[in-house]
Amino acid sequence: MQTTTQVKTPVVGKHVYGELYGVDEELLRDQEKLRKIVIEAAHIAKMHLVEVNSWKFKGGDKEGVSVIALVLESHIAIHTWPTYNYATVDVYTCGEHSDPMAAFRYIVSQLAPKRFTVNYSDRSYR
Amino acid sequence: MQTTTQVKTPVVGKHVYGELYGVDEELLRDQEKLRKIVIEAAHIAKMHLVEVNSWKFKGGDKEGVSVIALVLESHIAIHTWPTYNYATVDVYTCGEHSDPMAAFRYIVSQLAPKRFTVNYSDRSYR
Repeated sequence: MQTTTQVKTPVVGKHVYGELYGVDEELLRDQEKLRKIVIEAAHIAKMHLVEVNSWKFKGGDKEGVSVIALVLESHIAIHTWPTYNYATVDVYTCGEHSDPMAAFRYIVSQLAPKRFTVNYSDRSYR
Repeated sequence: MQTTTQVKTPVVGKHVYGELYGVDEELLRDQEKLRKIVIEAAHIAKMHLVEVNSWKFKGGDKEGVSVIALVLESHIAIHTWPTYNYATVDVYTCGEHSDPMAAFRYIVSQLAPKRFTVNYSDRSYR
Protein backbone atom coordinates (compact mmCIF):
# COMPACT_ATOMS: atom_id res chain seq x y z
CA MET A 1 0.00 0.00 0.00
CA GLN A 2 1.30 3.37 -0.93
CA THR A 3 0.92 6.25 1.47
CA THR A 4 1.44 9.87 0.67
CA THR A 5 2.75 12.40 3.10
CA GLN A 6 1.51 15.92 2.81
CA VAL A 7 4.46 18.29 2.70
CA LYS A 8 3.64 21.66 4.17
CA THR A 9 4.73 24.49 1.96
CA PRO A 10 7.21 26.53 3.96
CA VAL A 11 6.48 30.18 4.61
CA VAL A 12 8.60 32.24 2.25
CA GLY A 13 9.28 35.75 3.54
CA LYS A 14 11.56 38.33 1.95
CA HIS A 15 12.34 41.67 3.55
CA VAL A 16 14.17 44.44 1.70
CA TYR A 17 14.75 47.65 3.60
CA GLY A 18 16.87 50.74 3.37
CA GLU A 19 17.51 54.37 4.14
CA LEU A 20 17.15 57.15 1.57
CA TYR A 21 19.12 60.41 1.85
CA GLY A 22 18.81 63.70 0.01
CA VAL A 23 15.19 63.29 -1.03
CA ASP A 24 13.19 66.36 -2.06
CA GLU A 25 11.62 67.86 1.06
CA GLU A 26 8.25 68.62 -0.50
CA LEU A 27 7.92 65.12 -1.89
CA LEU A 28 8.49 63.73 1.61
CA ARG A 29 5.56 65.87 2.83
CA ASP A 30 3.23 64.74 0.01
CA GLN A 31 1.09 62.12 1.69
CA GLU A 32 -1.06 61.44 -1.38
CA LYS A 33 1.94 60.96 -3.65
CA LEU A 34 3.63 58.65 -1.14
CA ARG A 35 0.45 56.56 -0.88
CA LYS A 36 0.36 56.19 -4.65
CA ILE A 37 4.00 55.13 -4.71
CA VAL A 38 3.34 52.43 -2.09
CA ILE A 39 0.28 51.13 -3.95
CA GLU A 40 2.19 50.93 -7.22
CA ALA A 41 5.14 49.29 -5.42
CA ALA A 42 2.80 46.57 -4.09
CA HIS A 43 1.58 45.97 -7.62
CA ILE A 44 5.13 45.75 -8.97
CA ALA A 45 6.15 43.31 -6.22
CA LYS A 46 3.18 41.08 -7.12
CA MET A 47 1.79 41.51 -3.62
CA HIS A 48 -1.86 41.16 -2.67
CA LEU A 49 -2.68 44.59 -1.24
CA VAL A 50 -5.17 44.50 1.62
CA GLU A 51 -5.18 48.02 3.03
CA VAL A 52 -3.12 51.20 2.94
CA ASN A 53 -2.97 53.56 5.90
CA SER A 54 -1.12 56.84 6.09
CA TRP A 55 -0.54 59.61 8.57
CA LYS A 56 0.92 63.09 8.40
CA PHE A 57 2.64 64.53 11.43
CA LYS A 58 3.28 68.22 11.79
CA GLY A 59 5.47 70.27 14.00
CA GLY A 60 8.89 69.96 15.47
CA ASP A 61 11.24 67.08 15.13
CA LYS A 62 8.41 64.64 14.46
CA GLU A 63 7.28 66.20 11.21
CA GLY A 64 6.76 63.74 8.42
CA VAL A 65 4.58 61.19 6.71
CA SER A 66 4.15 57.48 7.39
CA VAL A 67 2.53 55.12 4.91
CA ILE A 68 2.00 51.50 5.90
CA ALA A 69 0.38 49.00 3.59
CA LEU A 70 -0.73 45.59 4.72
CA VAL A 71 -0.21 42.98 2.08
CA LEU A 72 -0.99 39.28 2.43
CA GLU A 73 0.75 38.64 4.87
CA SER A 74 3.43 41.19 5.27
CA HIS A 75 3.85 44.94 4.79
CA ILE A 76 5.34 47.92 3.01
CA ALA A 77 6.26 50.96 5.09
CA ILE A 78 7.67 54.36 4.26
CA HIS A 79 8.52 56.80 7.04
CA THR A 80 9.73 60.29 6.12
CA TRP A 81 11.59 63.12 7.85
CA PRO A 82 11.32 66.03 5.38
CA THR A 83 13.52 68.43 7.34
CA TYR A 84 16.36 65.92 7.04
CA ASN A 85 15.46 64.97 3.44
CA TYR A 86 15.38 61.47 4.88
CA ALA A 87 13.13 58.45 4.49
CA THR A 88 13.23 54.79 5.46
CA VAL A 89 11.63 52.07 3.36
CA ASP A 90 10.58 48.51 4.23
CA VAL A 91 9.25 46.10 1.64
CA TYR A 92 8.45 42.81 3.31
CA THR A 93 6.70 40.29 1.09
CA CYS A 94 5.57 36.69 1.34
CA GLY A 95 5.44 34.00 -1.26
CA GLU A 96 7.93 32.63 -3.72
CA HIS A 97 6.70 34.77 -6.58
CA SER A 98 6.78 38.11 -4.79
CA ASP A 99 9.57 40.48 -5.76
CA PRO A 100 10.30 42.96 -2.96
CA MET A 101 13.52 44.19 -4.58
CA ALA A 102 11.57 45.34 -7.64
CA ALA A 103 9.21 47.25 -5.36
CA PHE A 104 12.13 48.77 -3.46
CA ARG A 105 13.79 49.83 -6.71
CA TYR A 106 10.53 51.43 -7.84
CA ILE A 107 10.22 53.41 -4.59
CA VAL A 108 13.83 54.57 -4.92
CA SER A 109 13.23 55.61 -8.54
CA GLN A 110 10.24 57.70 -7.45
CA LEU A 111 11.88 59.32 -4.43
CA ALA A 112 15.16 59.89 -6.30
CA PRO A 113 17.48 60.06 -3.28
CA LYS A 114 21.03 61.39 -3.65
CA ARG A 115 22.21 58.21 -1.95
CA PHE A 116 20.62 55.20 -0.30
CA THR A 117 21.36 51.99 1.54
CA VAL A 118 19.67 48.65 0.95
CA ASN A 119 19.57 45.51 3.07
CA TYR A 120 17.95 42.13 2.67
CA SER A 121 16.69 39.76 5.33
CA ASP A 122 15.24 36.31 4.75
CA ARG A 123 12.07 36.09 6.87
CA SER A 124 11.19 32.56 5.77
CA TYR A 125 10.40 29.63 8.02
CA ARG A 126 13.71 27.78 8.28
CA MET B 1 29.95 88.62 18.91
CA GLN B 2 29.06 85.06 19.63
CA THR B 3 26.96 83.13 17.16
CA THR B 4 25.29 79.84 17.81
CA THR B 5 24.75 77.20 15.21
CA GLN B 6 21.67 75.07 15.48
CA VAL B 7 22.65 71.43 15.30
CA LYS B 8 19.92 69.27 13.86
CA THR B 9 19.24 66.26 16.00
CA PRO B 10 19.88 63.22 13.84
CA VAL B 11 17.07 60.76 13.28
CA VAL B 12 17.64 57.79 15.55
CA GLY B 13 15.98 54.61 14.30
CA LYS B 14 16.31 51.14 15.80
CA HIS B 15 14.81 48.04 14.23
CA VAL B 16 14.68 44.71 16.02
CA TYR B 17 13.09 41.83 14.15
CA GLY B 18 12.92 38.09 14.32
CA GLU B 19 11.19 34.83 13.59
CA LEU B 20 9.35 32.79 16.23
CA TYR B 21 8.92 29.00 15.90
CA GLY B 22 6.78 26.55 17.82
CA VAL B 23 4.21 29.06 19.04
CA ASP B 24 0.82 27.82 20.22
CA GLU B 25 -1.50 27.63 17.22
CA GLU B 26 -4.56 29.04 18.97
CA LEU B 27 -2.62 32.00 20.31
CA LEU B 28 -1.52 32.82 16.76
CA ARG B 29 -5.20 32.93 15.73
CA ASP B 30 -6.21 35.17 18.66
CA GLN B 31 -6.41 38.59 17.04
CA GLU B 32 -7.53 40.38 20.21
CA LYS B 33 -4.74 38.90 22.31
CA LEU B 34 -2.14 39.75 19.67
CA ARG B 35 -3.41 43.35 19.54
CA LYS B 36 -3.05 43.63 23.31
CA ILE B 37 0.48 42.26 23.15
CA VAL B 38 1.45 44.85 20.52
CA ILE B 39 -0.09 47.71 22.52
CA GLU B 40 1.73 46.66 25.68
CA ALA B 41 4.96 46.20 23.70
CA ALA B 42 4.69 49.79 22.44
CA HIS B 43 4.28 50.95 26.02
CA ILE B 44 7.30 48.95 27.17
CA ALA B 45 9.44 50.32 24.32
CA LYS B 46 8.48 53.87 25.34
CA MET B 47 6.92 54.44 21.93
CA HIS B 48 4.19 56.95 21.17
CA LEU B 49 1.39 54.74 19.85
CA VAL B 50 -0.69 56.38 17.12
CA GLU B 51 -2.91 53.60 15.78
CA VAL B 52 -3.20 49.83 15.82
CA ASN B 53 -4.67 47.92 12.90
CA SER B 54 -5.19 44.19 12.67
CA TRP B 55 -6.55 41.69 10.21
CA LYS B 56 -7.49 38.04 10.37
CA PHE B 57 -7.16 35.90 7.28
CA LYS B 58 -8.92 32.59 6.96
CA GLY B 59 -8.54 29.67 4.69
CA GLY B 60 -5.72 27.86 3.05
CA ASP B 61 -2.10 28.72 3.18
CA LYS B 62 -2.82 32.37 3.96
CA GLU B 63 -4.49 31.76 7.28
CA GLY B 64 -3.25 33.98 10.07
CA VAL B 65 -3.34 37.30 11.83
CA SER B 66 -1.47 40.51 11.11
CA VAL B 67 -1.20 43.32 13.62
CA ILE B 68 0.52 46.54 12.59
CA ALA B 69 0.88 49.47 14.96
CA LEU B 70 2.00 52.88 13.82
CA VAL B 71 4.14 54.59 16.38
CA LEU B 72 5.74 58.00 16.00
CA GLU B 73 7.40 57.51 13.47
CA SER B 74 7.95 53.85 12.98
CA HIS B 75 6.03 50.62 13.49
CA ILE B 76 5.50 47.31 15.24
CA ALA B 77 4.28 44.38 13.17
CA ILE B 78 3.37 40.80 13.99
CA HIS B 79 2.41 38.40 11.21
CA THR B 80 1.32 34.88 12.12
CA TRP B 81 0.98 31.53 10.36
CA PRO B 82 -0.86 29.33 12.89
CA THR B 83 -0.68 26.13 10.86
CA TYR B 84 3.11 26.40 10.97
CA ASN B 85 3.17 27.63 14.59
CA TYR B 86 5.15 30.49 13.09
CA ALA B 87 5.21 34.25 13.54
CA THR B 88 7.46 37.11 12.50
CA VAL B 89 7.95 40.20 14.63
CA ASP B 90 9.24 43.69 13.75
CA VAL B 91 9.78 46.36 16.37
CA TYR B 92 11.05 49.49 14.69
CA THR B 93 11.32 52.52 16.96
CA CYS B 94 12.58 56.06 16.70
CA GLY B 95 14.25 58.24 19.27
CA GLU B 96 17.20 57.77 21.56
CA HIS B 97 15.07 56.76 24.52
CA SER B 98 13.01 54.10 22.78
CA ASP B 99 13.84 50.51 23.64
CA PRO B 100 12.77 48.13 20.86
CA MET B 101 14.66 45.18 22.33
CA ALA B 102 12.59 45.39 25.51
CA ALA B 103 9.43 45.34 23.39
CA PHE B 104 10.72 42.41 21.36
CA ARG B 105 11.56 40.50 24.53
CA TYR B 106 8.07 41.19 25.86
CA ILE B 107 6.46 39.85 22.67
CA VAL B 108 8.63 36.74 22.84
CA SER B 109 7.72 36.21 26.50
CA GLN B 110 4.02 36.38 25.60
CA LEU B 111 4.18 34.16 22.53
CA ALA B 112 6.54 31.69 24.23
CA PRO B 113 8.11 30.19 21.10
CA LYS B 114 10.13 26.98 21.31
CA ARG B 115 12.91 28.82 19.49
CA PHE B 116 13.38 32.20 17.87
CA THR B 117 15.83 34.34 15.93
CA VAL B 118 16.53 38.01 16.56
CA ASN B 119 18.24 40.60 14.37
CA TYR B 120 19.03 44.25 14.80
CA SER B 121 19.32 46.95 12.17
CA ASP B 122 20.30 50.57 12.77
CA ARG B 123 17.80 52.70 10.83
CA SER B 124 19.31 56.02 11.91
CA TYR B 125 20.33 58.87 9.65
CA ARG B 126 24.07 58.34 9.19
